[in-house]
Formats: sequence, structure tokens, C-alpha cells
Amino acid sequence: MRALLAGVAFALLPLGACKCAPAGDPGAEVLAVLQAQSAAWNRGDVEAFMAAGYWPSPELTFYSQGSVTHGYDAVLARYRKRYQSEGAEMGQLEFSAIEVQPLGECAAFARGRWDLRFAAKPPVGGLFTLLFKHLPQGWRVVHDHTSVDAAP
Amino acid sequence: MRALLAGVAFALLPLGACKCAPAGDPGAEVLAVLQAQSAAWNRGDVEAFMAAGYWPSPELTFYSQGSVTHGYDAVLARYRKRYQSEGAEMGQLEFSAIEVQPLGECAAFARGRWDLRFAAKPPVGGLFTLLFKHLPQGWRVVHDHTSVDAAP
Repeated sequence: MRALLAGVAFALLPLGACKCAPAGDPGAEVLAVLQAQSAAWNRGDVEAFMAAGYWPSPELTFYSQGSVTHGYDAVLARYRKRYQSEGAEMGQLEFSAIEVQPLGECAAFARGRWDLRFAAKPPVGGLFTLLFKHLPQGWRVVHDHTSVDAAP
Repeated sequence: MRALLAGVAFALLPLGACKCAPAGDPGAEVLAVLQAQSAAWNRGDVEAFMAAGYWPSPELTFYSQGSVTHGYDAVLARYRKRYQSEGAEMGQLEFSAIEVQPLGECAAFARGRWDLRFAAKPPVGGLFTLLFKHLPQGWRVVHDHTSVDAAP
């Protein structure tokens, strides 16, 4: 039998080591993170967008259109290159159809839709699936899978 | 302030109601599910591929390329249409670079890469992010975000 499962790895991160805050409402807190992210984006502040939402770790993962980006710094560099290089435009970000689901005490899952509207080019949008963990910084995305609408 | 977060909803599924099996190894069990899925696919059995991996519920969600599919029956219909209609080919499926991470006792998260090779057309592939829950049927995908490699 050929290898159907190649390159298998187990990422058993120390979930138990996170500082959970069971007193809070994970759903509301995750939504507040997404709101802080979109507000930062819409004032053109990519650094604040990153800091408000993403795990400041080399283990952060970002999946998009077949490309895997590992680590906070690389994800920030990707956003800078795509949205802040010469001729690029950050646009106005809107999240919609958001669903949040707590998973145990330290993790939560969020999914929904993102849309970016630009002054000088057609809009883009798509879907996102986020895994959040409750870290010392608060709820932060540890894995982001973002995809883009198929061409019409 | 304009509505940055439109259409917000909370999907607070009854996680506590699932039948958890803390005695098992979630990582190994999730991998076994993926292996059963790829084996079923590679013998051309879409029904067994679905049954081995997906939550048999109208609440199953499948995200791909901007399209949201809700419900087991609709996801099955989508696979049938894309891979079993006239002129289509199921091909050979391979999962790779799989990482599994337990989240509490009832949930697990898996991510990795999928590739399909065909006899008569170019291969396709991309990334997946799966949310698994431990259900009476065993570990099953409740949310699937699958994206396709960007055109080279």
C-alpha cells in the first residue's frame, strides 16, 4: 500500500499552559478581537491589526491559496508586501457572518467572511477559519485559513 | 461608526453533550479517520469517504473558494457533482503534512495539504483546515475549510 498519509506530524502544543479566563465570555471576547483588528486595518495600521489579533509566536500559521506562512513576523511581512508596497492600497475591511464557538476552556473557533473595498480597484473577499487560543495577551489567532472567492 | 461586524452570530453548539473518549489518543484517531477517507476516495467510493470523515448533520459546514456549503447531504452532492458527473474523474487523493492538535476533550483541529492526481488531466491540490469533534460515530469533521493552490 502506498503512503496515503505522508509527512504526518503531531503538533501537541501545551494547551494546558495557557492562562485561561473562564469568567469571561469567549464569544464576545473573540468578536471584540476581530472588531479591534478591522478598526486597526481601516485606519491603515497593519502593525496594530497584527498585534490585536495574532499570536506573537514563530508557531503562528497562516494558510492562504496553497501557501503556508509560519510565524508572526512572516505573516506581518506578507501583509506589508501585499497591502503596503508601492501602488498597493489597504482598503476598507469588513468581517461578516461571523460564528464563534468555544472549544474547551482555552480555545475557540471562529469562521466567517471578509471583504476588502478599495478606492482604485475592484473589491476582493472570501472566507476565513480561525483557531483562537486564550493566551496571556488575551484571545489570539494561532491558525488562520483564509481563502479568496473563486473568479466569477 | 459604521458596522464593521455585520451579520454576527454565535454558534454555541452543545459541546458538553458529545460522547468523549478520553481514553483514546485523539491524534492517532483523527489520523485514522483521514486515512479511512483517503482509502475510500481512492477506491472511488464517495459515500464511504463522506461517512468515514464527516458529521452526518445539517450543521456540517464546508468552506471552499468563497462558497459555503451547509449540511452533510449538500457536501456529498457537491463532491458527486465535481468528481462523479459525466467526464469527471475522482483521481487519487493524498493527504500530507498533517498536524493534529487536541482542543479540550471533545474537539481536535487538523491541518495539512491535499493533492489529487488524475489520469487524464493536470493535478490539483491545496490546503485544508478541519475542526473535528468526538461524536457517537467517533471523531468526525464538523467544519472543513479547503482551499486550492493559486494558479502558478
